[in-house]
Amino acid sequence: MKISIIGLGLIGSSIAIDLRKSGFGKIFLGVDANEIHQIEAIELNIVDQIVTLEHAIAVSDLIILATPVNISTQILPKILDKISENSFVTDVGSTKENLIEVIKNHTNRKQFVAAHPMSGTEKSGPNAAFSGLFENKIAIICDAENSNKKALDTVEKMYQSLGSNVIFMTAKAHDEHVGYVSHLSHVIAYALAVAVLEKEKSGEDILKVAAGGFTSTVRLAKSSAEMWTPIFEQNKKNILPIIDIYMEKLAEFRQNLEENNTEKINEFIKEANKIKKIL
Amino acid sequence: MKISIIGLGLIGSSIAIDLRKSGFGKIFLGVDANEIHQIEAIELNIVDQIVTLEHAIAVSDLIILATPVNISTQILPKILDKISENSFVTDVGSTKENLIEVIKNHTNRKQFVAAHPMSGTEKSGPNAAFSGLFENKIAIICDAENSNKKALDTVEKMYQSLGSNVIFMTAKAHDEHVGYVSHLSHVIAYALAVAVLEKEKSGEDILKVAAGGFTSTVRLAKSSAEMWTPIFEQNKKNILPIIDIYMEKLAEFRQNLEENNTEKINEFIKEANKIKKIL
Repeated sequence: MKISIIGLGLIGSSIAIDLRKSGFGKIFLGVDANEIHQIEAIELNIVDQIVTLEHAIAVSDLIILATPVNISTQILPKILDKISENSFVTDVGSTKENLIEVIKNHTNRKQFVAAHPMSGTEKSGPNAAFSGLFENKIAIICDAENSNKKALDTVEKMYQSLGSNVIFMTAKAHDEHVGYVSHLSHVIAYALAVAVLEKEKSGEDILKVAAGGFTSTVRLAKSSAEMWTPIFEQNKKNILPIIDIYMEKLAEFRQNLEENNTEKINEFIKEANKIKKIL
Repeated sequence: MKISIIGLGLIGSSIAIDLRKSGFGKIFLGVDANEIHQIEAIELNIVDQIVTLEHAIAVSDLIILATPVNISTQILPKILDKISENSFVTDVGSTKENLIEVIKNHTNRKQFVAAHPMSGTEKSGPNAAFSGLFENKIAIICDAENSNKKALDTVEKMYQSLGSNVIFMTAKAHDEHVGYVSHLSHVIAYALAVAVLEKEKSGEDILKVAAGGFTSTVRLAKSSAEMWTPIFEQNKKNILPIIDIYMEKLAEFRQNLEENNTEKINEFIKEANKIKKIL
């Protein structure tokens, strides 16, 4: 199979590495506007050739769209305009309703499979890519009924060859779920980093005493603006009310503390501890 | 040296393991109200003997107080009441001003060294203890001028033998600094867990799609109420305004998103990204 990766970031590059390893794909073509990414992806043998988007569309059996989500909404219609009859396209973005809305009436809609592998790191680019990123992770396929069977089969097998467990969901449920477990975590980490860096700037050397707990909580604050600003914008409808719910919880904790309500603070923490049963 | 560990939790037990390994201590005595902890600590060879607090005070060269901070404020005065002239006591608690206030006028104040090793995990008890927990980590000694030289030397050497880097700070600065980099991270994680678990309870299976980012951000929510409720209460003075500052940052992000202010969202994330230079 000839596979094109559009966007040679951490996700696109890591997919290519393991699809080559598993034998799922034979020839890998890469499309990326960033010249450093182009060079790295060739040097690391992630793709065999850097090509134009037009070339990739013309010759690929499977096109994997792995650009930031604001770019994907621009590129996907162009891919569907020109895609060959027996080829398929899938994306890996963290927001789904918006992208599907853009192409919902496209003649070739059924050749597209909306998907989201639930894995990543805070790093970016081909250099950050690695084998095994998707192993034993969830891959979500959205609105499967709107893709044709062969396209679905191909994408499902692709994720199986990466070692992922495929689950199915509506785009609507997906966007709300990842709003809670992924997008909110990023908002939380960004706000924590901004608050602590502002304090640090005031001349207090507080990061000197930072330990593993802080490092863990703030890790996602290293994630790039290029990728995350459009995710927040596309999932605004879900994220705004989720931030409100989160801030209510913070306010509840704060009030219990202000009122010296030991029992309520204890209850709050014990409720939070239940996450142990799940994670 | 004969060393007593008061409180055989993760921290007390991990200190004992490495002080034995390094040869800093020869005989280790343990005091803990929890019978399961007593049995585990003996079975794991963390301490040689379980004794009463009175016995520990009577025979030890060094007493390490590693109980939850509300227990430490009750026990430390009793230790200082009966401590031998050439023995010392140190604590490991996450709050310092409160504990020091309790014993500031005690005749034997100078035999106490207020300290805080900046390391831990979300787990508890002797079973969770391990060698190397304090290696290359910061240990903070507070208000050093109020301890006698021999006590200070002993505690400093103890942390050096654990592989830690000792730094000095006032109790006041300590409590504010850890409020930012440790206590706030815990509040954030507890509130995130409570918010997500509440949503999960409403019948939506959202934790099924949780990936590494969520796991990292929420990790500290597994930390015990027994340990953390008294920390929050003792550091309330610092934590309340820090929560307010954090919530202002969240509100700022939220407003930028609501107003579709792409430029401001980008700036916010790029500001947060600066944490990369430090961590």
